[in-house]
Amino acid sequence: MKELCAELLEQVRKKRPLVHHITNYVTVNECANITLAVGASPIMADALEEALDISALSSALVLNIGTLNERVVPSMLAAGVAANRAGAPVVFDPVGAGASRMRSEAAKMFLYEIKVDILRGNISEIRHIAGLDSKTQGVDASEDDMRSIADAVFIAKELAARLGCIVAITGATDVVSDGGRTLCIRNGHPMLGRITGTGCMCSSLVGALCGASPDMLLGGSVAALLTMGIAGEIAYKEAGVKGNGSFRTALHDAVSRIDARTLESEAKLYEA
Amino acid sequence: MKELCAELLEQVRKKRPLVHHITNYVTVNECANITLAVGASPIMADALEEALDISALSSALVLNIGTLNERVVPSMLAAGVAANRAGAPVVFDPVGAGASRMRSEAAKMFLYEIKVDILRGNISEIRHIAGLDSKTQGVDASEDDMRSIADAVFIAKELAARLGCIVAITGATDVVSDGGRTLCIRNGHPMLGRITGTGCMCSSLVGALCGASPDMLLGGSVAALLTMGIAGEIAYKEAGVKGNGSFRTALHDAVSRIDARTLESEAKLYEA
Amino acid sequence: MKELCAELLEQVRKKRPLVHHITNYVTVNECANITLAVGASPIMADALEEALDISALSSALVLNIGTLNERVVPSMLAAGVAANRAGAPVVFDPVGAGASRMRSEAAKMFLYEIKVDILRGNISEIRHIAGLDSKTQGVDASEDDMRSIADAVFIAKELAARLGCIVAITGATDVVSDGGRTLCIRNGHPMLGRITGTGCMCSSLVGALCGASPDMLLGGSVAALLTMGIAGEIAYKEAGVKGNGSFRTALHDAVSRIDARTLESEAKLYEA
Repeated sequence: MKELCAELLEQVRKKRPLVHHITNYVTVNECANITLAVGASPIMADALEEALDISALSSALVLNIGTLNERVVPSMLAAGVAANRAGAPVVFDPVGAGASRMRSEAAKMFLYEIKVDILRGNISEIRHIAGLDSKTQGVDASEDDMRSIADAVFIAKELAARLGCIVAITGATDVVSDGGRTLCIRNGHPMLGRITGTGCMCSSLVGALCGASPDMLLGGSVAALLTMGIAGEIAYKEAGVKGNGSFRTALHDAVSRIDARTLESEAKLYEA
Repeated sequence: MKELCAELLEQVRKKRPLVHHITNYVTVNECANITLAVGASPIMADALEEALDISALSSALVLNIGTLNERVVPSMLAAGVAANRAGAPVVFDPVGAGASRMRSEAAKMFLYEIKVDILRGNISEIRHIAGLDSKTQGVDASEDDMRSIADAVFIAKELAARLGCIVAITGATDVVSDGGRTLCIRNGHPMLGRITGTGCMCSSLVGALCGASPDMLLGGSVAALLTMGIAGEIAYKEAGVKGNGSFRTALHDAVSRIDARTLESEAKLYEA
Repeated sequence: MKELCAELLEQVRKKRPLVHHITNYVTVNECANITLAVGASPIMADALEEALDISALSSALVLNIGTLNERVVPSMLAAGVAANRAGAPVVFDPVGAGASRMRSEAAKMFLYEIKVDILRGNISEIRHIAGLDSKTQGVDASEDDMRSIADAVFIAKELAARLGCIVAITGATDVVSDGGRTLCIRNGHPMLGRITGTGCMCSSLVGALCGASPDMLLGGSVAALLTMGIAGEIAYKEAGVKGNGSFRTALHDAVSRIDARTLESEAKLYEA
């Protein structure tokens, strides 16, 4: 799997897929920049009027409900259905699912109306979507919801099988499952949780990797999370990093510089 | 007061309050990151449909009209009223009040319909709200409006008493008043005025500090402005700072690293 | 021309023009910061209700359709017409024109209804607007569309004459024409194409420079692109630059520090 992930990183740089995002306005700049840094091309377009045109150009779609409003719900739906028809992978990031009925209902509706290929969230969001009790406190994962890796593995596997998609739970240990095979990633650094947008950026990376290799969605998802985790480790070790601001800068540097060899050698990847 | 401010900074890190923002899309990422850097958790949610749900989870509300539009006016109103009912402090940042009738009228309406706990703006915005002549030039303070510290002290005190809230005027010298007690802060650096978002970030910090200690609003407001001012001084002294970009990075670093002891020892705080 | 550009850079710092932006939410923070860095003052305001008030205060208008939606189309139109009446230069950045019918039609409509003073885009966008075949792939220029400098010069000149405005095509070599005189700029660095927002920031710089000197639109446009190109070169040479994140930081540093003398001495400017 490590070798495959390294190969998939090279593919994204060769193919430079266009990744259509309908996402929140908090972290949209980070998402565009991380998409470029990994070697893909971002387009952020949320108007219903252009959903079909942009979908026709794009290799992947990222739907992120971080600042959901009623205007973009139909845009997300139309873009999702169009991506499904075109065979472009759809990544769904249910930011804050459980924090409001609006988000919970939109998440439910999208999962029903769109064939989501990869569902990526934190443990609180994924617990909520799985129908389990969840102490969602806003958009960050609740510590009460982080129980054990075994618990996350069980949820990811069961939900992936139930929804027929890949489920990626990110946290101190990331868990990725397609219902059959489940992998754990132990890369990363606690600093990734102290700046905004690292979750959203993971979803963008999943879109980029899977957009380049739409037949390798499990590998692409794992490769994306490895990229973020390893980049976080590299960023933290940078000489100039002195706090949240310089860590963020170093993270973008690391993603733009990471190569297949580093990805393969630094990956802390385990079958669950 | 310095000791209290130091204690309040520790409280925000212990309690990690959720700070609901309905804010502009220009500086929203900076606001989310500075909220995390000081130790709180941000949630940016502007849909009317979820205003009540998000308010129910949150410890403070920040309303910022930097890119106001008609869709979010009812959201701000609903969130404000809900925060009032829940006893969560409401920070109002009247960005550009005076620059357009829309902003001026929205500011007036919010101050009438919502019990604003802390009003934070630059001298031009506060003069406008106080009903004084103001030469607002966009969203930055007009130099013509910066007369003397005595003038700012008078306005802050009078307006605070009139509105029954805390008024915080930020500038080269910050002035904070609850109508009874008025404090001046002489921390900061001119570079803070050369990057976008430092005013908005001050409002986010006020939300974080006051959300953690809702019974200490004057102290929380002063602590927030001290944090930004001292962080600006620290950032400017950083070896790698060579211009606006690296100053911004260093500012986020400094806020994420500042501790209670530094806050207390570096504070340049005077009773007016 | 180099001397004039240097003088125009000094003018923007003396006059500090207010630059009204109706722009996308992806790069809006970068645009605000680069406007401040070059010495002007940004105001981002997209509500129709305040379009006229903000126009009345502003020295230039930047319209950017990077995340166009139906709400802001009338705002852009109203602000454009008001800026025309006031004699404030209007910069139009047709981001992604050709990528969707919505963007293409909006671009066409704005060019018909508003007297655009400076049209700035990449080669794919400008080819599309000129009615030539264009392989627009999202918001980045298509390599197929980058043929030769002679080709870009021909298109810029012809389109400028036809539309009666300045046309600025940015890329490895920038081409700026008012229909009569055409200039090429060979400053810049490939890294500028690897982070998001450098095109948008160019448009903001054009707004700032032309807002300060509305009688010198060709010079102002050239000065703006020289500023970005030279800043990109300076940023790349910075010791701490290790990837996309630190390059972006260094770019903002360089724009905030660039002086008239550097602009004049580093300019690689040729008459076409």
